[in-house]
Amino acid sequence: MNIALDAMGGDHAPQAIVEGAVDAARRYKITVSLVGKPDVIETELKKHKTAGLSLPVIPASQVIEMDDRPATAVRAKPDSSMVIGCKLVKQGQVDAFVSAGNTGGAMAAGILHIGRVRGILRPALIGPFPTLRGACLILDIGANADVRPEHIQQFAIMGSIYARHVMDIAQPNVRILSNGEEAGKGNQLVIESYKLLEQTPTINFAGNIESKEIPTGVADVVVTDGFTGNIFVKTAETTARLMTQVITEEIKKSPLALFGALLARRALGRVRERMDDSHYGGAVLLGLSGIVVVAHGRSNPFAIRHAIRVAKQSIEQDILGKIQRGIVETEAAHASMTVAADTKNAA
Amino acid sequence: MNIALDAMGGDHAPQAIVEGAVDAARRYKITVSLVGKPDVIETELKKHKTAGLSLPVIPASQVIEMDDRPATAVRAKPDSSMVIGCKLVKQGQVDAFVSAGNTGGAMAAGILHIGRVRGILRPALIGPFPTLRGACLILDIGANADVRPEHIQQFAIMGSIYARHVMDIAQPNVRILSNGEEAGKGNQLVIESYKLLEQTPTINFAGNIESKEIPTGVADVVVTDGFTGNIFVKTAETTARLMTQVITEEIKKSPLALFGALLARRALGRVRERMDDSHYGGAVLLGLSGIVVVAHGRSNPFAIRHAIRVAKQSIEQDILGKIQRGIVETEAAHASMTVAADTKNAA
Repeated sequence: MNIALDAMGGDHAPQAIVEGAVDAARRYKITVSLVGKPDVIETELKKHKTAGLSLPVIPASQVIEMDDRPATAVRAKPDSSMVIGCKLVKQGQVDAFVSAGNTGGAMAAGILHIGRVRGILRPALIGPFPTLRGACLILDIGANADVRPEHIQQFAIMGSIYARHVMDIAQPNVRILSNGEEAGKGNQLVIESYKLLEQTPTINFAGNIESKEIPTGVADVVVTDGFTGNIFVKTAETTARLMTQVITEEIKKSPLALFGALLARRALGRVRERMDDSHYGGAVLLGLSGIVVVAHGRSNPFAIRHAIRVAKQSIEQDILGKIQRGIVETEAAHASMTVAADTKNAA
Repeated sequence: MNIALDAMGGDHAPQAIVEGAVDAARRYKITVSLVGKPDVIETELKKHKTAGLSLPVIPASQVIEMDDRPATAVRAKPDSSMVIGCKLVKQGQVDAFVSAGNTGGAMAAGILHIGRVRGILRPALIGPFPTLRGACLILDIGANADVRPEHIQQFAIMGSIYARHVMDIAQPNVRILSNGEEAGKGNQLVIESYKLLEQTPTINFAGNIESKEIPTGVADVVVTDGFTGNIFVKTAETTARLMTQVITEEIKKSPLALFGALLARRALGRVRERMDDSHYGGAVLLGLSGIVVVAHGRSNPFAIRHAIRVAKQSIEQDILGKIQRGIVETEAAHASMTVAADTKNAA
């Protein structure tokens, strides 16, 4: 197995990226192809023991920066690590591409150089969100800032297929994120998408969900536009980090509390572990004709290793084939429903 | 001072509402008029010591429920506590109205029975959000699910006036909530609103803000549509509550940790206090020609008392007069800018 990794993307590139790659190559016994500026990558590689590991360097002279406009940058920087990584996937030279760089850039490079699954209008970022019962799949968490109801419908179909075939959930409960749980609550996009989702036979649509209900684990799949999804995920992450900071500040104010915290440190460590999103690794860009995993911009080596794990599992579980077959089955189901309805109407 | 309180609105009505009213009437030495079903309110009042307190009951036979459609319900239930409360404000019989009921209902009843400040297209819910430096004002947090850029512009103007005249911030830093901090990041609404905000001379617009930056206290005012604002506020609240739950669960697993937590309990209590939103009370429905405060649906008596405090302070600080004068000044400033630009163009 060969996974290409964008060595230049992310807040802590290239150090954290290369460190995560070395760890992943050793642990998972796979090839991790490092895409980027060779001198920069070689310098980083020398800091680690890499004997016996498969870590080839694939040159790419340009970098798509965080503030670059995706569509423009993908065309203006044909030799960027993002573009080269996607081309490697398209040409079948690697099995997947992982990047912690500009999300919009990965989306644009993926659409342009890998292409979409037949029938899919917009690929979407699907990410697991920790709940009290495990994890809930949320999409889109950042690839499409503006969407239409038919995009939301496809997100629901792709999310259901992913939950069924990758997470082994027989009848995934699908909800749409809204500002109220009652039907009819929401903005125009939610209200119109709701009607479309109700009429989609291949998903188990259960109505609106408020953000406060997501952590209870009542939903398996939550669909939303990429703007709202991104704000939801980032707000939850930030609040959890802020809580940790406030707790540390308050405990440090008193020696007694500090001693108490010392006694409770294993429990607090488990809290951190449960709330830490970095072991979830990355989000799959679902709907592309190849596997692309987007990791958080602030990824540390641990998060990069787990993003590579997500890519590895996606390959092993044949996510691509499952999504492609799922889309075909869904289209067939919808077509037969339409034929049945037409026949009924004609009778 | 006489503040009308919707005795029938909220998840814990009427018990929590009446208890909060009794507390507020005693503490603040004001009249709290309880609007709702007299028998229900009287039964609750008997549970408390009310001698010497001013707690008149104002009959309203109907209730606007949480799942009622606001515009329809306000017309179909003319004798609801929400409608009666707003009419009391309009007639000058009370100085403000407070409700923990259906937010859309309060908005619809307010527009229909109190009316908007001249020139304001859409009233918005403005709420303080706790930051490491104090609080940041966010609007809209739930009154308008769908808005246009010109609405966002007015939210920014109203928010600035509120920050200047109520929070005493000389040059309030105004941002727009987006999924990236760089200019150009955002959905269409954000991108178009950004252009309009840049051209608004009476505000100190400082660009996009990501939700993760809000807790740092870098912005004094954050504008957004009511759908996104509502999801932001609820996600932050929920995550904070979830963290507390996870911490309690983990600590209870070990006697040593439990003993440690006991030693750190004062510090943990201060954390709860800092992260607890209930002492912020309620959000003012800014842009109405009268003071309406919307409290959280899950308000306990403590939150209700603080929502009444928010109404009391809004009256004392003459928020209504300040917003009205601020809007007139802003219109004059914009008009003179336009005249100057026209003169320049003509020359």
